[in-house]
Amino acid sequence: MKIALDAMGTDNCPGPEVEGTVAAFPELPKDVSILLVGDETKIKPLLAKIPGAGSLPLSIHHTSVAVTMDESPAKALKSKPDSSMAITVGLQKKGVVQASISAGNTGAFMGSALFILGRIEKVNKPGICIAWPTPHGKPVAVIDCGAVADCKPVNLVQFGLMGSIFAHKALGIENPRVGLMNVGEESTKGNELASQTYPLLAAASAINFIGNLEGHDIMLNKADVIVCDGFVGNILLKFFESVPHLVKKLVGDTFKQDSFAPFRQAFNRDIYGGGDLLGVEGVVTICHGSSTGLAIKQAILKTYRMAQEKINDEIRRQICLLKETP
Amino acid sequence: MKIALDAMGTDNCPGPEVEGTVAAFPELPKDVSILLVGDETKIKPLLAKIPGAGSLPLSIHHTSVAVTMDESPAKALKSKPDSSMAITVGLQKKGVVQASISAGNTGAFMGSALFILGRIEKVNKPGICIAWPTPHGKPVAVIDCGAVADCKPVNLVQFGLMGSIFAHKALGIENPRVGLMNVGEESTKGNELASQTYPLLAAASAINFIGNLEGHDIMLNKADVIVCDGFVGNILLKFFESVPHLVKKLVGDTFKQDSFAPFRQAFNRDIYGGGDLLGVEGVVTICHGSSTGLAIKQAILKTYRMAQEKINDEIRRQICLLKETP
Repeated sequence: MKIALDAMGTDNCPGPEVEGTVAAFPELPKDVSILLVGDETKIKPLLAKIPGAGSLPLSIHHTSVAVTMDESPAKALKSKPDSSMAITVGLQKKGVVQASISAGNTGAFMGSALFILGRIEKVNKPGICIAWPTPHGKPVAVIDCGAVADCKPVNLVQFGLMGSIFAHKALGIENPRVGLMNVGEESTKGNELASQTYPLLAAASAINFIGNLEGHDIMLNKADVIVCDGFVGNILLKFFESVPHLVKKLVGDTFKQDSFAPFRQAFNRDIYGGGDLLGVEGVVTICHGSSTGLAIKQAILKTYRMAQEKINDEIRRQICLLKETP
Repeated sequence: MKIALDAMGTDNCPGPEVEGTVAAFPELPKDVSILLVGDETKIKPLLAKIPGAGSLPLSIHHTSVAVTMDESPAKALKSKPDSSMAITVGLQKKGVVQASISAGNTGAFMGSALFILGRIEKVNKPGICIAWPTPHGKPVAVIDCGAVADCKPVNLVQFGLMGSIFAHKALGIENPRVGLMNVGEESTKGNELASQTYPLLAAASAINFIGNLEGHDIMLNKADVIVCDGFVGNILLKFFESVPHLVKKLVGDTFKQDSFAPFRQAFNRDIYGGGDLLGVEGVVTICHGSSTGLAIKQAILKTYRMAQEKINDEIRRQICLLKETP
């Protein structure tokens, strides 16, 4: 298996990309290779400094074109067909690699993936699924964390199914519990979208739907998968990510104490392994622009599992079994 | 001034109500009296145990009918016109009191307030405004925290105006900065509701609109008022409220250290002073069912300021100056 990694994505690229790639190899099977897509004049000197990097199953696909963070995704897609992220996805389309990772401009990467790879048949809209760390150790998969701001019930039902397959295959959770993000427990609660989605989730036999969840339930092991529209999911995710910063600001040096290790670990977004764009015809992992080497390493390891477990075959199979919903 | 407090609201009623009321008096002007509405056979014995309570400007309006937490708001409204919360609001309608507080069934209390007091003219829908504590000490007012799950742009614009008046009058913030909860900075970002609301907020001269905020901006002193629909606001609020519990679970006894006092303080929901239903013809404060005596005391003090500052006069005046929006 070969994984393509856009080496021009992170804010400090290609440092974290190179570091994360080298760090990932010891935990990957021998037959997995990684293709770094980016400026070889920047990548090669970094690799040269790492002892033993020359013997790793690692190659470079050179391009000096990168999409910047503030670029309009639509414009980047059109005007930069040879950008590192477009090439990363394009190589998957051609079958040269089996998965693509980028920490660059999320909108542009998502657009490239959708445009180049396309959707899995019957998937109306792909969603971003992120495994959040939790205090109980087992992550909770939240889908959608920002792909689709305005959802229809059918989108949420499909997110529920894809999130469930993700939790099973990528996180190893048997019969994952799927909850609907809402403002109360009762089935009729919430906005129109949530109250219309509830009976559809309840009727979907492939989904182990456990009902509505409220904001305080997110981190409390009530569900393994949480379904919401991308507007709610994105706001929640970013708020969640700001919590360590807030706590640090409030408790000062206490944050560095050994007793704080479980907190630092539970709220460490570097261990997410990025977000997965579920529903496209390919394995696509989206990382934070601020990703560290550790974050990139974790993303590579999770992306490998996604490809290895053939999650898309399972999505393709199960999505056909869902009843048509409005 | 007289404030009516539903004494049958909290989970442990009427203990916290009685305790909070007695604790509030030393910080209230001499001419403020409080009317406890509830079962006098339960309230009187509690008061009897508190030295000096007999000489406080405190009276009881007896009713033994209470709305329970799991009751349908619509049903409670119809079948229990003599419930403690309905009487609390009814006394304000009659002019016997100038403000109403309840920690009971939120939906039923909101329904009672809307039905009995009505809306301020030109306010399409009232919203729940809550002053969240923050690490920088100054609270941020989030509106709507759960009154209107499906909003139109006009609702959000009115929330922005009412939240701004609240931040000015109740929190003492000059020219409050109003931000729109969204998933990116650009004006065109977000779901349909947010992208349609942005230009309306920008055009409203009475509102100091500073643009979009993302999830990580909420607690970072970027804005004094955050506008969102009640679905998003309610989920965020409950998630926010669960943070101390999560941190406690993760750091164990470290949570009790002195160095943790700023955190405990910043995330202490008891100091909110409850939520304000802005846009109704009256002063209406909604408290948590789990409110402690401290939470009730803080709610009384804030409710007093709301009534004293005649916030509704200001809302009535300024809402007429807003351009008609779709």
